[in-house]
This record gives sequence, structure tokens and C-alpha cells, in this order.
Amino acid sequence: MNGEPRRNVRLLIEYEGTAYAGWQLQHDRSTVQGAVMRAIELALGEKTTVYGASRTDAGVHARGQVANFRTASGLAAWKIGHALNAHLPEDVAVLEAGDAPAEFHSQFMAKGKHYRYVVRNDKYRSALDRAFCHLVRGDLDLDAMQQGARRLVGTHDFRAMATQNETKKNTTRTMRRVEWVKHEAYLHLEVEGDGFLYNMVRTFVGTLLKIGKGGLGPEDIPRILASKDRRKAGPVAPAKGLFLMKVEY
Amino acid sequence: MNGEPRRNVRLLIEYEGTAYAGWQLQHDRSTVQGAVMRAIELALGEKTTVYGASRTDAGVHARGQVANFRTASGLAAWKIGHALNAHLPEDVAVLEAGDAPAEFHSQFMAKGKHYRYVVRNDKYRSALDRAFCHLVRGDLDLDAMQQGARRLVGTHDFRAMATQNETKKNTTRTMRRVEWVKHEAYLHLEVEGDGFLYNMVRTFVGTLLKIGKGGLGPEDIPRILASKDRRKAGPVAPAKGLFLMKVEY
Repeated sequence: MNGEPRRNVRLLIEYEGTAYAGWQLQHDRSTVQGAVMRAIELALGEKTTVYGASRTDAGVHARGQVANFRTASGLAAWKIGHALNAHLPEDVAVLEAGDAPAEFHSQFMAKGKHYRYVVRNDKYRSALDRAFCHLVRGDLDLDAMQQGARRLVGTHDFRAMATQNETKKNTTRTMRRVEWVKHEAYLHLEVEGDGFLYNMVRTFVGTLLKIGKGGLGPEDIPRILASKDRRKAGPVAPAKGLFLMKVEY
Repeated sequence: MNGEPRRNVRLLIEYEGTAYAGWQLQHDRSTVQGAVMRAIELALGEKTTVYGASRTDAGVHARGQVANFRTASGLAAWKIGHALNAHLPEDVAVLEAGDAPAEFHSQFMAKGKHYRYVVRNDKYRSALDRAFCHLVRGDLDLDAMQQGARRLVGTHDFRAMATQNETKKNTTRTMRRVEWVKHEAYLHLEVEGDGFLYNMVRTFVGTLLKIGKGGLGPEDIPRILASKDRRKAGPVAPAKGLFLMKVEY
């Protein structure tokens, strides 16, 4: 027997990442994990660790982050949700709170994730969506971008599409969906896969936008992946266009 | 001949109203009209008046405000758009800029407007949409709200649905569309009409939400309109859920 309470609470969390240095706790910077842990302390009087499914990067948003924590509280889960919302800053919100099996772990048990990247392709900037999209001016060859996206689907070694400093040994991941969906002036890249390397979705976007501008062709994608060389891919697209939409278990 | 230049520039403007005391210029408070006039002065070196189609209230947003102003500038209209965006705060953006006939007046020539009011009907608040919707907890009878909305369609004297201090003599307006559209947890009230009294859409919403909660019935709408008594209608819904979507000419 150890000192950790057995009750396991699962949260669905939404946040605007603009003001945060990402999900993961840092001792000197504001993070979403830190905000949730502080809210638990204020609401339930317990210092505890919250585990998140995805360590979203600075400035990245979430519509569907999943987190869990242990508590000795006897409060009904939906009341815990309200209590946390009362103590969370307004740019972080609990959307659902429920009891989970004792063995549930949001990060290690995640089977897949869905990310969306929002590009605004317009002459002028937006006021209402300024924090939620990446503005790209000028013509984009969406057909070529779609062909490039299709070549990212499947099981590949994505080392060339991660950060240059990727330390993971196994960089092979499976993408079930990489697809552009057009909504008027907005282009959404919908990405669903079993796991993601650091900066991977944003590198997909930077590379596909380079294809859209004619700087690369869709047929370059297999060549870039095979090279395993980060320098062959396009730039990392800005964080503010990226949303963690859903975590699958 | 007077001193006003003949060139007439028409703008489509988007803004988040959160930080503004509405559209209309005030000498001691930040307004959208003031921000646009200052941007024109900085970009073109001209002090001029900008006319807006709708005097949106404090906190109300716009996706499609239409404005016009006179200028002696010889700059291409699309370049004026970029120059204004460079000098506007980030919560105000020009979406289109074009030359208009000399006689065009955004306010007096408007034939109709489309407003959208966004209600979030959920247990918990949202982080991403916190500035763009009105949170209503608990069950709403959407069917009754839709029946109530239908009774606002047509030509009516809307005095009971305006502010108590409405000074306009003629308070009869024609609503072409008053309809709730459900998008998951969000309910949009789509309102299209030839003209609007002060606070009218927000009073529609406050009254229809009262119907949704059972405090009034849809059949009360004709009775409220006939009474011409503001006190019979529901409360004014918060500004942050309201968007000016489109102006028709």
C-alpha cells in the first residue's frame, strides 16, 4: 500500500494556449498543467500531479485535452468540474469531469490523437480569429497540398518531420488521416495518428504550405521522409494555428 | 463645390467588440469608429469621418460591418486596406477595401442587416469561445424557442423589444428571418431584417431564452408586441454573444 488515493478523476480540458508556455509544468513559467494543479489545490485542498495526454507546446490550443489525477475527495465528479472551473483562469476550462478506472492513465493509455491546424488563406488578416489561425497570403495550390498530405498517410519513419533535436529512438508513427478541408477562406489540416513527434504536425503544415507555394512538389514527400533529414522538410508553422482536438483510448 | 474629396472608399470591417465601448465615436472612451479614424489619419495623413452601417453597442462583435469614408488619397483601394490594417489594433481588421460610387453611404443606404446571437447551452463554460458566446446552463425547450422566434418574423411594431428609452417615432420593422440553428452545444439565433431598434436583437434573445426556460410561452410573443411595453419582454442578453454578420444594400 502506498500513500496515493485510489480515486482517479478524468478531465476533458479546453484551453487557449496563447498565454502559456505549453502544457507541461515549468518552475518559472505559466503552463496549463500548472494552472490545473493550482486549481485542484484551491478547490480540493490537495497537492497532486495532473497527467495530460498531450504535452502541447507553447501557444498551442486544445479543444480536447484529456487529463487525470488522483484524489481523496468525496465530491461528485461533476461538482469537481465546477469547482475547478471556478478556480481556473478564463482561458482554461474543464468541459467534462468523471470517475475513471483506477488504472486509467491519460498519457500512457492514449491510442491515438486528432490534431487540427488552421490556415487562413486571405489577403487581409482577421480580427476575430487572430489567435487561432496562421495567415498565409497569396495563392496556394490546394490540389498539390492535398496530394502531399496523402503521401504522409500510413506508417512511416517521420524523423525528417520532427524537431532536429528529437531524442526518441523509435520515430516511426502511423497516420490514419492527413487531409486538407476547405471552409471558405480557411484551410484545416486534419491529422489523426497513433502518436506524434515533437513539432511534427507543424512541420507537416510548413512542408505542405511550401508545396502549396510551389517550393516543393507532392512527390518530394517520400524523398524527404526517406532522407530522415530534418533540413529537407519545410519550416515549422506557427503554434497559434494548432489545436489538439481529441484523444482516443 | 465643397471641400470634401469626391473619392469614396468602402470598407468591410471585422472586430472583436470586447475592448470597445461600441462602434460610435466617444471623446473619452475607446471605440471602433475612433480606431478606424485614427488608422486613416496615420495611414493616409487625413482627418476624416468614417460612417458605419451599424452602431454596434459596447462589447458587440462584427464579422461584416460596412463603413465608408472620403479621401483625397490616390492609393489603390487594396493598398489602403493593407495600410489601415497596419495601423489598426489587432482586434479590428479590414477584410475588404474598394472604391464606391460617390453617393454611397454605408448607414443611410443599408437595406437590411443580418445579426447572429450565439448561446452556449452547456453545463460548463468554454475557454476558447469565452468572449464570443453567452453561456446558459440547464435545459432549454428549443422547440418552444423556435415557435417564439417564428412569431417575431414579419412586420411588427417592436417598441416592446427595444430599450425603454427608445426615442424613435417609428418603431415598426420587418424581420425576414428569426430562427434558431443548433450546432452541437451552440444555439445560433439568426436574425435578418430591414432595420433594428436599440437592444432589439438582445431583447429577442432574452425573451426567447425565458420561453426556453418555461417563464413565458411562445404564444406570449404577440401579446408582448401588442402591449408596446418593454417591461413585458425578457431581459437584454449579454453583448458578447452578438455578431453583426452582414449588411445588405
